[in-house]
Amino acid sequence: MQIGFIGTGVMGSGMIRNLRKAGFEVNMYNRTRAKAEALEETGARVLDTVKEIAETSDVIMTIVGYPIDVEETYFGADGLLENAKEGTIFIDLTTSSPLLAEKIGESAAKRNMFALDAPVSGGDIGAKNGTLSIMVGGDEAAYEKVQPIFQAIGQNIMLHGPAGSGQHAKMSNQIAVAGTMLSVSEALLYANKTGLDPERARQTVAPGAGGSWTMDNLGPRMLKGDTDPGFFVKHFVKDMRIAQEVAKELNFKTPGLDLALELYEQIESEGLGERGTQVIYEWLLPQQRS
Amino acid sequence: MQIGFIGTGVMGSGMIRNLRKAGFEVNMYNRTRAKAEALEETGARVLDTVKEIAETSDVIMTIVGYPIDVEETYFGADGLLENAKEGTIFIDLTTSSPLLAEKIGESAAKRNMFALDAPVSGGDIGAKNGTLSIMVGGDEAAYEKVQPIFQAIGQNIMLHGPAGSGQHAKMSNQIAVAGTMLSVSEALLYANKTGLDPERARQTVAPGAGGSWTMDNLGPRMLKGDTDPGFFVKHFVKDMRIAQEVAKELNFKTPGLDLALELYEQIESEGLGERGTQVIYEWLLPQQRS
Repeated sequence: MQIGFIGTGVMGSGMIRNLRKAGFEVNMYNRTRAKAEALEETGARVLDTVKEIAETSDVIMTIVGYPIDVEETYFGADGLLENAKEGTIFIDLTTSSPLLAEKIGESAAKRNMFALDAPVSGGDIGAKNGTLSIMVGGDEAAYEKVQPIFQAIGQNIMLHGPAGSGQHAKMSNQIAVAGTMLSVSEALLYANKTGLDPERARQTVAPGAGGSWTMDNLGPRMLKGDTDPGFFVKHFVKDMRIAQEVAKELNFKTPGLDLALELYEQIESEGLGERGTQVIYEWLLPQQRS
Repeated sequence: MQIGFIGTGVMGSGMIRNLRKAGFEVNMYNRTRAKAEALEETGARVLDTVKEIAETSDVIMTIVGYPIDVEETYFGADGLLENAKEGTIFIDLTTSSPLLAEKIGESAAKRNMFALDAPVSGGDIGAKNGTLSIMVGGDEAAYEKVQPIFQAIGQNIMLHGPAGSGQHAKMSNQIAVAGTMLSVSEALLYANKTGLDPERARQTVAPGAGGSWTMDNLGPRMLKGDTDPGFFVKHFVKDMRIAQEVAKELNFKTPGLDLALELYEQIESEGLGERGTQVIYEWLLPQQRS
């Protein structure tokens, strides 16, 4: 089974290393070729174009930046759908638009190809350690067929329904993250402003009903002033925008998501897009009521 | 050591049972006398007035409904401060105003008494099992002296600073709970509205970065339509109002708290004040964008 892999950023690199460890043949493509070349030591080969990946692969995995990049990679004239072989299985690991995932699924089906949307969570560490959660939408037979691939890169792997369902599950995840991040930062802000030792307050809150992954893992980083990116503000904004669009289209209200997005858009507009999402604590700290 | 206990509601009852199990002498007072009488089987005795409690106790524990009840119990003409013995240690377990706790602390000190504010978290189950988290503010020597009492009713016990600090720590906790509750309900709402199996989505989200105590414990109840109160909407509104007032007074912004409070005030105004806080999921479900 020949795997083509497009997008060798920090997430893709971790996945490729684990695919190679599991013995898969991998050809890579990346817009910035040097990043792909850095992975040649794993035995994966660099190809020059998306088209070459399309023509030489049985399974094609993509993890690129934004929905616009996904669209170009799949639907461009030199893109995947136009040039892949019949029977090809696409796995888009990008967190992207559920509607776009549906569109890719339909276009693939028309060409006797299969498309899975399979966004992940677990960050660069999960990618490196092969412990990603993978939320999958699409054809069940294709999903079963690529199980060995998913198991090489992740642990918590679930099929949620037809094309787009993986993206929807990821959006559900991001909505949970958004409000929790805001509430953790405000809880610690409150502790700080009322003269408590915020780390002691955090330790009191964390084991109980106010506890969360964010309180355990990002709370301490907030209090230490460590804003290094585990997850970029700019990517979080992208994800929340997608979720908000879906909610608008389906006509339901997500007031917490709307608020978190509004705040993170402000944070991004102040030049903090490349900081980790936990920067919101530092950003809230000096805010006064107007 | 003679303990006086005021407020034998569901929380107080659990605490009194555990105090009796630990061998403490307990006199009780409750506005609705029958509720106190139900605890006589434990060996605790019912007294007729707050004043009698004040006159006969070395340590007086209070857990009443709202700050106004705390104020009356402590500052009324027949109340605790006017009638207690010198050296009395007060422990107010009510989640109440930090400023009121400071006021009680000052008034107690003037009379050579000691006041601890010690709100708890862990709900009726924690009260029953003696596993409450206790967030304490006030005099350190008094705190040390009543350690055996705290240990009879709780587990995660921490002194956070001078009078009011226990209430502030509890507010920090409630702020964390508020935004997390909103984000969990919206995440599950999104899963529901986009045609996912929301329980499967919940299982995907729960172990990762979107995970929280609320997602683990209240998420399943949201999806089953179980709105029985673990924690009442009306009490949550009370707590969030106190936290918001503090933030206003100290002039910092808590946009997530403000939003959660606004939504829960609407929920309460629609007659759902006596439902559990997880009712927000059901309440959001039919909401359309206007």
